[in-house]
Amino acid sequence: MLKGRLKSQIEFIIEVDKLKNIIRRSHITDGSKLENDAEHSWHLALMAFILSEHASYNDIDVLKVMKMVIIHDLVEIDAGDTYAYDEKGHEDKREREVKAANRIFTILPKDQAEELFDLWEEFEERETKEAKFASVLDRIQPILLNYTADGKSWKENRVSKQMVIARNKHTNEGSKIIWNYIETIIDEATEKGFLIDDGI
Amino acid sequence: MLKGRLKSQIEFIIEVDKLKNIIRRSHITDGSKLENDAEHSWHLALMAFILSEHASYNDIDVLKVMKMVIIHDLVEIDAGDTYAYDEKGHEDKREREVKAANRIFTILPKDQAEELFDLWEEFEERETKEAKFASVLDRIQPILLNYTADGKSWKENRVSKQMVIARNKHTNEGSKIIWNYIETIIDEATEKGFLIDDGI
Repeated sequence: MLKGRLKSQIEFIIEVDKLKNIIRRSHITDGSKLENDAEHSWHLALMAFILSEHASYNDIDVLKVMKMVIIHDLVEIDAGDTYAYDEKGHEDKREREVKAANRIFTILPKDQAEELFDLWEEFEERETKEAKFASVLDRIQPILLNYTADGKSWKENRVSKQMVIARNKHTNEGSKIIWNYIETIIDEATEKGFLIDDGI
Repeated sequence: MLKGRLKSQIEFIIEVDKLKNIIRRSHITDGSKLENDAEHSWHLALMAFILSEHASYNDIDVLKVMKMVIIHDLVEIDAGDTYAYDEKGHEDKREREVKAANRIFTILPKDQAEELFDLWEEFEERETKEAKFASVLDRIQPILLNYTADGKSWKENRVSKQMVIARNKHTNEGSKIIWNYIETIIDEATEKGFLIDDGI
């Protein structure tokens, strides 16, 4: 029985290796390549424990945040990465991702499949304090990457300051301190011409 | 003061992006590319919570294991990856890595720099229950990748079954169940010709 559990777990661990081939739209900081989902998820997990002191709530469960960010993009193995500013791609995103969750998480033993499904849903709904903080990390990481890579991906995708603010200002809820800091980075990025200013 | 802390933390988060360019000797499972340290560290963090039930000790601190595996390779940003079976590279590995830890971790505020240094040292010394379990993950992950990629990296580096067992059998201490399972995989890999059999 135990061997059966371990066998399913190892099968899952091998299957999710595919996350290393899911390419995002952000370049890594030296601009040498596009980032993939596994690299992005690692970065968020590191940020979770380095930045947790700045969460809006004091008693945040850091282990839960780390688990969430480690698994939050696994559905993209089947559903693909939907770019933040791709409105059309967002129309059927949910449907594609639920189907993917049902296939990928159920490789695991039932109790763990349920745990992953619950963590993923909690992250997506962004209502608990841990999900709100995980969302802060997920949103600011590409901003930091883009800023450091001289706005390479923003320029390629004609992204404006106003688009970045509209999409990310809710991160204020998860950490006011971090969001205020990111606003100064967005301003600097605009001044340097990395982001278009729509002037609205 | 808080702003100063956050500034150092963000600087660290940007600096460690370089981990995505530290290339290992293992190919990812489809054989399409060599793995990098960020991808590897993400994979270990996921394994930490999926496999923690198999640790030799019941009351393992999973958060600590996850933190350890997320940061365990950061020193390689300066020191480079030393291949498991490279005896010469191992001679001055410790010296190169301590120097790297001193530069990279100290970008952080002092308390966090100390936390990271302690976590990294604990991982390296492999004496606590968390470090022993983290080591299991670090050692079996490339075995799983290599096995799934038809032994591509073992063949390239002329690695034998006996070398793999000699280097990794201590993982038995961190999890007997997982090591027994991996032994069957090593046997299968040898039968399939992915690993040389020295017959000793």
